[in-house]
Amino acid sequence: MTLNNQPEPNLTPSGDPWLLTPGPLTTSLSVKQAMLHDYGSRDLHFIDVNRRMRKRLIEIVNGQGTHECVPLQGSGTFVVEAMIGSFVPADGKLLILINGAYGERIAKICKYYKRETVLLEFAEDAPVCVAQVDQTLAQDKSITHVAAVYCETTSGVLNPIEDIAQVVAKHERSLLIDAMSAFGALPLDASATPFDAVVASSNKCLEAVPGLGFCIARKDALENTKDNAPSLSLDLYDQWTVMEKTAQWRFTPPTHAILAFNQALNEYEKEGGVSGRKKRYSENCLALVNGMRAMGFQTLLSDAVQAPIIITFLSPADPNYNFEVFYEALRKTGYVIYPGKLTNADTFRIGCIGSLGVGQINRALKIVEQILHNMGVLNRGPVQAVVA
Amino acid sequence: MTLNNQPEPNLTPSGDPWLLTPGPLTTSLSVKQAMLHDYGSRDLHFIDVNRRMRKRLIEIVNGQGTHECVPLQGSGTFVVEAMIGSFVPADGKLLILINGAYGERIAKICKYYKRETVLLEFAEDAPVCVAQVDQTLAQDKSITHVAAVYCETTSGVLNPIEDIAQVVAKHERSLLIDAMSAFGALPLDASATPFDAVVASSNKCLEAVPGLGFCIARKDALENTKDNAPSLSLDLYDQWTVMEKTAQWRFTPPTHAILAFNQALNEYEKEGGVSGRKKRYSENCLALVNGMRAMGFQTLLSDAVQAPIIITFLSPADPNYNFEVFYEALRKTGYVIYPGKLTNADTFRIGCIGSLGVGQINRALKIVEQILHNMGVLNRGPVQAVVA
Repeated sequence: MTLNNQPEPNLTPSGDPWLLTPGPLTTSLSVKQAMLHDYGSRDLHFIDVNRRMRKRLIEIVNGQGTHECVPLQGSGTFVVEAMIGSFVPADGKLLILINGAYGERIAKICKYYKRETVLLEFAEDAPVCVAQVDQTLAQDKSITHVAAVYCETTSGVLNPIEDIAQVVAKHERSLLIDAMSAFGALPLDASATPFDAVVASSNKCLEAVPGLGFCIARKDALENTKDNAPSLSLDLYDQWTVMEKTAQWRFTPPTHAILAFNQALNEYEKEGGVSGRKKRYSENCLALVNGMRAMGFQTLLSDAVQAPIIITFLSPADPNYNFEVFYEALRKTGYVIYPGKLTNADTFRIGCIGSLGVGQINRALKIVEQILHNMGVLNRGPVQAVVA
Repeated sequence: MTLNNQPEPNLTPSGDPWLLTPGPLTTSLSVKQAMLHDYGSRDLHFIDVNRRMRKRLIEIVNGQGTHECVPLQGSGTFVVEAMIGSFVPADGKLLILINGAYGERIAKICKYYKRETVLLEFAEDAPVCVAQVDQTLAQDKSITHVAAVYCETTSGVLNPIEDIAQVVAKHERSLLIDAMSAFGALPLDASATPFDAVVASSNKCLEAVPGLGFCIARKDALENTKDNAPSLSLDLYDQWTVMEKTAQWRFTPPTHAILAFNQALNEYEKEGGVSGRKKRYSENCLALVNGMRAMGFQTLLSDAVQAPIIITFLSPADPNYNFEVFYEALRKTGYVIYPGKLTNADTFRIGCIGSLGVGQINRALKIVEQILHNMGVLNRGPVQAVVA
């Protein structure tokens, strides 16, 4: 403790606050150091890095021989939009399963693209109901595709992607998955779970820096996307075929972010892939949830539907609580958290992904307690109890 | 010289070959080191970096008070597409001035977007003819916008952007400029040269790493782009208004590339802005062209239309010449050059931009001579002499 009763800051190996957020997140120093080189896009080492990156991403979902990987410049939303535009043809009809902001964003993309949609909306604190998906697909034979979000970052809720996939396959429709904050830490097996395409980005559970996303698609589904995309930059078919032909990106790749991604994939494999990463994140999540509950906080979600990625806590009822003050005090002591994103409840979010373990979570918990004590926030329960 | 008569490699401060290419290019070590930190998108320092980045980019074109800067994730083509989609409405008609691959790419974007176009095509080794632009605009009153490429990277030719702008303004149409490989090194003064929007990227003459582009637009023109864009990710109006309102990016920003860009802008200002950078690149270009001519090479372009960015050389007629062998030998000794991109002539290209000066150019020239000598390429003149 310093003289003015503020806890001493804990910082990352690069001297920054720990990012307890849904990303950009804390990456290892070695991932960042991989960016200390400039490569030309024709460089043989760089071409090899790209080839291995695409191969390894396919292996993560066990899609060797059946699936293709198409990386794309930009943020996660860019590759979500690219997937929608490339896979849903102009005369297609997309059923969107919505229980948060990222499902809603897919609907927004479809408005831009003038794609016909059916929206199936669920509460933000509950997973997608598979029976309703089943019923909707049975009733509306004109639906060609279904879009689902694996882990809805808005709340942190885990959607039953395996059950959704089986129902969509039963009705012989195509499934498009936004696995942004799940890919690499939550299981997805392309050889068992039928889907046409899944997208994610470099800067979530794979722990690289932001700058690119990727789509992993069934090869025959991808082959059928020619001339679908309404955008040159976001045309996954064109991106794929040019990359296959030339081993290079169509347009300038984010070379440094790709070098970081390559190093992050090395470290991912060293940790044991999906199972290793899921284990660490689950431990982080458990320590965080138990620790916050011990302080009197309440989680939005029940444990059964909580993904070990980001946890939504209900804001304390105590009149001394103020999110901005709490956020600033935490940031000054080395921990960055995230505001809530729910439309109908006062919340904040703490992520448990990135290059960090239970040690960092426990240190963060101690600081949270100190800060709440300093703020005089004694009652950490929410205004209105939520039956989770 | 090593035992096997190969020159010793010259490497950059980060131990990499020098990139004599149109980008990604060699950046300073300090620009790369700026990426050794992870920032959350709500972080106050990061928000300040973004604010200053946008302000400084506007100042480069003297657009303070009249122009706005909208950065965008992705490669240069992403922001070119965003400019076309956001500024040319569905009922607009775009005149595209084409003398290389980047003009053609704008036409390709318009095909995706189903925008009506008029293509005015010129030889790849000649600048756009302003009289023809004048005539076309006089004849076709339905043209609403004109797209021009400032420096056409295909050949390195400098287009007369000031004259084009005056003619477009005379006819009261809107000018959209792709200044990808010119911005920051070739003059553009928004207070004197009328244009609605100009786009460029982080990784050309501003010497940062790839990962983002930006659009600088007249505020009143940008205000009129609401609901024009056919793409959510590439909607510059939406990107602008959300950034103005929240000081944050709509979707995950390439945080590390932005930190590098911030440092690159510090170094740019220290060098004296446009005039300083143009001076160094012009010296590099002169040393390169003179040195190559002294060896017997011929440039595609006459000096009067050569931009000091990238130089196209005609391939030697000597039967011992082979581009791939030449390229590989140069790369091994620390210099990466670029293949030609012309449709009608056998050429290669050497860039003179990036974090390098005449010293590196002169060392590269010595190595070129040694490699050509080793290859037995004695006649460096082209198959067919070109009257430049």
